[in-house]
Amino acid sequence: MITVHDAAGRLAAALGDGPAAKLAASALVEADALGLPRFGIAMLDEWTVDAAPVAASDGAQAINWLDCSSCFAPLAVASAALDLAGAARQFGIAAVFLRGVRGFGRLAPFVRHLADAGLLAIAGAEGPPFVAPYGGIHPVIGTNPLALAIGQGADRVVIDVATSTATMADIRNARVSGAPLPDGIALDGEGRPTSIAAEVAALLPRGGQIGSLLGLVVELVAGVAGGGRGDPKGRGVFILAFDPARAGDDVDWQARLAGLKRDWTTGGGHWPRGGSLSLETELDDDFAQRLDTHLARMTGRSAGR
Amino acid sequence: MITVHDAAGRLAAALGDGPAAKLAASALVEADALGLPRFGIAMLDEWTVDAAPVAASDGAQAINWLDCSSCFAPLAVASAALDLAGAARQFGIAAVFLRGVRGFGRLAPFVRHLADAGLLAIAGAEGPPFVAPYGGIHPVIGTNPLALAIGQGADRVVIDVATSTATMADIRNARVSGAPLPDGIALDGEGRPTSIAAEVAALLPRGGQIGSLLGLVVELVAGVAGGGRGDPKGRGVFILAFDPARAGDDVDWQARLAGLKRDWTTGGGHWPRGGSLSLETELDDDFAQRLDTHLARMTGRSAGR
Repeated sequence: MITVHDAAGRLAAALGDGPAAKLAASALVEADALGLPRFGIAMLDEWTVDAAPVAASDGAQAINWLDCSSCFAPLAVASAALDLAGAARQFGIAAVFLRGVRGFGRLAPFVRHLADAGLLAIAGAEGPPFVAPYGGIHPVIGTNPLALAIGQGADRVVIDVATSTATMADIRNARVSGAPLPDGIALDGEGRPTSIAAEVAALLPRGGQIGSLLGLVVELVAGVAGGGRGDPKGRGVFILAFDPARAGDDVDWQARLAGLKRDWTTGGGHWPRGGSLSLETELDDDFAQRLDTHLARMTGRSAGR
Repeated sequence: MITVHDAAGRLAAALGDGPAAKLAASALVEADALGLPRFGIAMLDEWTVDAAPVAASDGAQAINWLDCSSCFAPLAVASAALDLAGAARQFGIAAVFLRGVRGFGRLAPFVRHLADAGLLAIAGAEGPPFVAPYGGIHPVIGTNPLALAIGQGADRVVIDVATSTATMADIRNARVSGAPLPDGIALDGEGRPTSIAAEVAALLPRGGQIGSLLGLVVELVAGVAGGGRGDPKGRGVFILAFDPARAGDDVDWQARLAGLKRDWTTGGGHWPRGGSLSLETELDDDFAQRLDTHLARMTGRSAGR
């Protein structure tokens, strides 16, 4: 057993121990602790000792584009989020577009970090074509998650939602287990609904037309304007943040956030928190062993604590 | 009969004939021409001769908040969109938050104008609580549309989508006609599904959870950070734009947009165009008479052309 705190600390040290290393490490460990191992330390498979240092955003600009194809992706996204906080404070609003991004995990920890810095942050990621447009039959866009965070403490909200009904990992799992897929998840190569994982050629958008349009929004921002679409070296990711305190005393955004949370939950809604958890949460021995193996490879030492 | 071109020209003159007047006038006339009269010149009912001049955004800032409660809303949104284009070109990215906005029509014409200026634009509007959260039973947020536009000519995309299944206007129309509502549209005062318009107490989010979360995204940006939520004088509206050409030669966003459109339509999807139409489109005599009546009131002259 190892706590989130200790696992993230050990991983951050192996990643260089700077602020980006700490943010990337805690993001990956958190995913494992949330039971989402395919967004967790499995990403370390992509780490290489000769990964390029993460390019710094140009602090003189409110908007930046970065090619991350030679970087370790979780560090690149973390570093971009940290730089973005400074730019958003300086200019009031800022954005960064990353391309060539390989597996980086979940968006939630990065937008949450920006919310902790007092900003409203929105992020999205495009990816390889797995999802058909609404009404269509062939895959055109990725599962294209969108995330938003604002606020601190009990009122904080962290949204992190895929725009597809399922992920290709879900389909691969069903292929292995042989379990039938739920209805309305996927199409076969002829564009017909299918519940047989081995026949899946395209996933469907979540919620029909609105999920399809939201996936298209993410593709237009991260893939078209951000330049990520069609890059064989990795995905397109954007992060945007602005400083609501710039409104001055006219807008008490913290009171409005507290009021909206109260109304939302009183109205019967679930207030999304993006799956954060206590640093004292414990991970099991299987995780601890996997972490040891990764750390041994990264530090060039044999496994063992 | 009157063409869109001539109707918009006459209305723009009555609104002062500047760039904002022209944009606002064409947005309203276009809505009528698209068969959406409740987003059209009916908005002129709110026009008063003593409406405050539209506040100019502070050109020295990438991000601005404006109280529009004393302004004619279509002019205020048009003026903000025009100022935003300048700020986005100057800083690379910019945003404006309007509050106290009364009926202004559709978002699509304003983001389309920014796309014509070479920008990617995103806008959203919150409003009075009509829509329940996913899984909830009481209304908490508005029908909260989100819009995005990028590109020019044949490849241009204009998304403009409400995050609710229906609008309160749809419910009012059904109340008058007595027609039953489709399933899955609305809840009664006890939170039970209803198809009886007179019993509707809350609308449902479009597409279930994802539409609910997207409505929450719009509320958090326009209502919380933008300060619009709970303002009895009107809605919160945000418009955000950035300049994809700032990426330089590394990202050919126009080629990527053309490629995405080709893939999207080949895959069976509908490429959204936001309902623009030819300036030569003709509007019927009923519209022409309504326009005359509005113009007569606005100019203090008796109706008649």
